Amino acid sequence: MFESVTVIGSGRAGSTIAARLRERGVAVRDEGELRLLCVPDRAIAATAAALEPGPWVAHVSGGTPLAALEPHERRFSVHPLQTLTLRRGPEQLDGAWGAVTGESEHALARARWLAETLGLRPFVLADEARGRYHAGAAIASNFLVTLHEAAAGLFARAGAPPEALVPLMERTIENGFELTGPIERGDWETVERHRAALRGSGFERAYDALAEATRA
Amino acid sequence: MFESVTVIGSGRAGSTIAARLRERGVAVRDEGELRLLCVPDRAIAATAAALEPGPWVAHVSGGTPLAALEPHERRFSVHPLQTLTLRRGPEQLDGAWGAVTGESEHALARARWLAETLGLRPFVLADEARGRYHAGAAIASNFLVTLHEAAAGLFARAGAPPEALVPLMERTIENGFELTGPIERGDWETVERHRAALRGSGFERAYDALAEATRA
Repeated sequence: MFESVTVIGSGRAGSTIAARLRERGVAVRDEGELRLLCVPDRAIAATAAALEPGPWVAHVSGGTPLAALEPHERRFSVHPLQTLTLRRGPEQLDGAWGAVTGESEHALARARWLAETLGLRPFVLADEARGRYHAGAAIASNFLVTLHEAAAGLFARAGAPPEALVPLMERTIENGFELTGPIERGDWETVERHRAALRGSGFERAYDALAEATRA
Repeated sequence: MFESVTVIGSGRAGSTIAARLRERGVAVRDEGELRLLCVPDRAIAATAAALEPGPWVAHVSGGTPLAALEPHERRFSVHPLQTLTLRRGPEQLDGAWGAVTGESEHALARARWLAETLGLRPFVLADEARGRYHAGAAIASNFLVTLHEAAAGLFARAGAPPEALVPLMERTIENGFELTGPIERGDWETVERHRAALRGSGFERAYDALAEATRA
């Protein structure tokens, strides 16, 4: 659909996407048929505004509306729903989903093509639903890091090996997020003991709020 | 070390442990050399008190001190650090770690034997460190379920497929819990948009507390 793409930005997303496009035989070069913005969210509007109108323009942000691509009208977005690291190559896109957003069938067809070329499983995301979508993604990934940090800190203070948490967390996902443990059993004495054990850890407020959300 | 074990309790832990012991050639029967309490935490003390003194007595709780096994003196505990489900068999213990606690070398040797016979990787946990250890385990597993629930709810409201969260969460673990996303980038505008998107979801307090813990 596009034989050449200009990838703007060389952070985690830009470098992974450029490598995958090259692998798939798409020319990554200046003056490409598609200008693909892989820049930080707050830089998207200024970067788009500085581009000569004409070619298709897209961004890869989950939280940024298409209006940030003004004044371009041939525009869309593809958000790879994955946490990317510079330590991995383009294969890290395989198996992940991709949110595609466009304002016309032409735009959506191009977004779908890009997602599939990258190795993503596309689904259509309405531009106005981005806030909820992106909040969900951040909760699932970023706060999982926070939970692990808190749990690993408690393990270290208890003399238990923090790496022992990994099989537990992996299996929690594999088991389809089936809830076990004290809250599932209605064992509030144990919950109270946890709160006491957390004193001074900086995680008390989060524990209470999460316990309340879990109970609900 | 023990040729026969009496497994008391037939919930998730008791049934998984009894099946694994049988697989390993240990007789699971009444009047065993070891009485292994796989009952809810709050039932441990009463169950232990009702047992005739003499044989070794142990429990499999993470949060319950050994004193709950009074009046028995030949006692220890082994806590499988894993979320167990009745939909899986004893193989669900493989690769998990096990916290072993005992008050003498004799007791610890028996605890280690039991952990290894079950297929667990043993580590010694001090009885007085249980509070922190068990709080850490609950945070890592139970609250991961809570995060997923909140994220899946937001995805459903955004028209995005909740199953798309699974590769994201799995990779977050595989990548060694490397933080990416708006908080890592110091992108507070996006964080504010998330807070707005969460209104009415019941997860606002948890979001704020977790964002604060992540920032720290």
